[in-house]
Amino acid sequence: MEKRIKIAVDAMGGDYAPGEIVKGAVEAARKFGVEIMLVGTQDKVAAELAKENVSGLAVSIVDAPEVITNEEEPAFAVMRKRKSSIAVCATMVKKGEADAMLSAGSTGAVMVAGLQYVGPLPGIDRPMMGGAFLQLAPKTIVLDLGANVGVQPYHLVDFAVAGSVYARTFLGIENPTVGLLNVGAEEGKGNDLTKEAYSLLKKSGLNFIGNVEGHDIPFSRVNVIVCDGFVGNILVKFCEGLGRVVSKWLGGELKGKMADKDIETVTSKIYRLLSPGEAAGGGPMWGVNGVVAKAHGRSQAAQITGAIDQARQAVESGFVPQLAAELEKVKGKISAG
Amino acid sequence: MEKRIKIAVDAMGGDYAPGEIVKGAVEAARKFGVEIMLVGTQDKVAAELAKENVSGLAVSIVDAPEVITNEEEPAFAVMRKRKSSIAVCATMVKKGEADAMLSAGSTGAVMVAGLQYVGPLPGIDRPMMGGAFLQLAPKTIVLDLGANVGVQPYHLVDFAVAGSVYARTFLGIENPTVGLLNVGAEEGKGNDLTKEAYSLLKKSGLNFIGNVEGHDIPFSRVNVIVCDGFVGNILVKFCEGLGRVVSKWLGGELKGKMADKDIETVTSKIYRLLSPGEAAGGGPMWGVNGVVAKAHGRSQAAQITGAIDQARQAVESGFVPQLAAELEKVKGKISAG
Repeated sequence: MEKRIKIAVDAMGGDYAPGEIVKGAVEAARKFGVEIMLVGTQDKVAAELAKENVSGLAVSIVDAPEVITNEEEPAFAVMRKRKSSIAVCATMVKKGEADAMLSAGSTGAVMVAGLQYVGPLPGIDRPMMGGAFLQLAPKTIVLDLGANVGVQPYHLVDFAVAGSVYARTFLGIENPTVGLLNVGAEEGKGNDLTKEAYSLLKKSGLNFIGNVEGHDIPFSRVNVIVCDGFVGNILVKFCEGLGRVVSKWLGGELKGKMADKDIETVTSKIYRLLSPGEAAGGGPMWGVNGVVAKAHGRSQAAQITGAIDQARQAVESGFVPQLAAELEKVKGKISAG
Repeated sequence: MEKRIKIAVDAMGGDYAPGEIVKGAVEAARKFGVEIMLVGTQDKVAAELAKENVSGLAVSIVDAPEVITNEEEPAFAVMRKRKSSIAVCATMVKKGEADAMLSAGSTGAVMVAGLQYVGPLPGIDRPMMGGAFLQLAPKTIVLDLGANVGVQPYHLVDFAVAGSVYARTFLGIENPTVGLLNVGAEEGKGNDLTKEAYSLLKKSGLNFIGNVEGHDIPFSRVNVIVCDGFVGNILVKFCEGLGRVVSKWLGGELKGKMADKDIETVTSKIYRLLSPGEAAGGGPMWGVNGVVAKAHGRSQAAQITGAIDQARQAVESGFVPQLAAELEKVKGKISAG
């Protein structure tokens, strides 16, 4: 019999915790045959679990007696509170008691947990964040999206490796193209960071196609786009605002020209297409020595189930060892010049 | 009798030169009572001018015997060819033979002409580019939009001053708010550049409201937003691509649900609202010691007429001396700490 994949789920993180987290996790156990360990305040989790039918499923509770309150800065609290649900999850991954963890807590808290309790991948300074942030371009991965502000040229190479492995593993793109986000297409354009990163990427052995520009993102002209987290963060948040403003504008513009329910459909669609939403807020954290997955803070049960499935796929596909191997290979090529 | 404002118009720059440029300039002479000096290859300009009715208008031709060919890099060619139309225009401004100049040539060429032949404003290293690049947010000025990549903190102060004077002069905003584009709202966020710029802006005496984030652009939460030209360029080009992809998507989505002509209307509108287009490609160049205005390369007669009107307003409102005075005042405040 195949070994069940074990996933530690932070039952206390996210806007709808613990109810929706528990519900979504139980559904994942049923649907994907994974073993779920719900980590949180024992009695609260037990109360939610009592509402679910878990017969025949591998679902258990792991008590995490320390609670992170709303008054605390989450990343800092995770660092101090080793018995908080998110810290316990990460420690279970580190010890091999879980194959992966999932939390819908704050990004900063998940990053700290990954870095402090699981540890970084060899050769990585700190975790990265990325994804297909623009849903109009669902196969164009941009990173870093804000975890790393003020990077060095070699960080952009790390991002390129992580994005390439992600595109291969999760999007099934065999030899993903990599572009360097810049102010012009020609080599030699840009600031000191991009100029130096260009020459490193050329030597990396990755499928580097050179500089790409802002318009190449919506046009999906490349699979992986790397940039400093400063730029990525501005882009993601710009789209967040744009999605709201554009969908509202469109609703007003179409008023009276189409049935109201059709207007509702098209405005929600455009909102989703422009909003980074799930894509930017979820997925495995890159550059941590274990599968540390993050779900969007607004996740309800269905999104939690989906995020657990992603974490399962990350374990099954060997995302982390592949990333480690690819990083080593690329660094070797660059050193060899 | 009031002195006529004299404007040197580069008749040879832009996609529709010289025909549309001449036509638009003659119309400006008629509409606004300005004196137009058409600068270009004598016989070509004369041939176009012969098609227009100029009776009673102050329109003349100034020969510029050197021609910039398509094979040349325009900015470099302008630097070498002192008798090219764009260089002659700028020299006329420098000598006081014209109160302002307008060109629909390449941005780089106009910048070089402004810098080399007119000269920078005292205390300014190089010209800036900015505008309300997102037409969904027509009263939110963002700069720099790509002329200055890899700036120092004090450049962001220059941008803030230029944007404030522009907002006051052209948008009639009395005490424009200024925001620093950053990855978080709190002071202390960001990279070295934004951290240092924050403390300079606080001392500047401008109406500085602190950090703003990507979503504050579409929400028009502030009048002037300053950023490194790297970020500005990525944003502008991102929108260029987005305008095309979104309008095309919307056309497909609405197909069959509305009359075709209504679909055409709404898709063109959304394209314009998202595209930086005219706003980013035109207007006075900021930080040059004279009114050097740029029209979009795609400008036809009507846009040229409009751009000449803008140049006229810049002269009448004293945009350049106001900017010089404000720069001096702000620098004084910052030095005083």
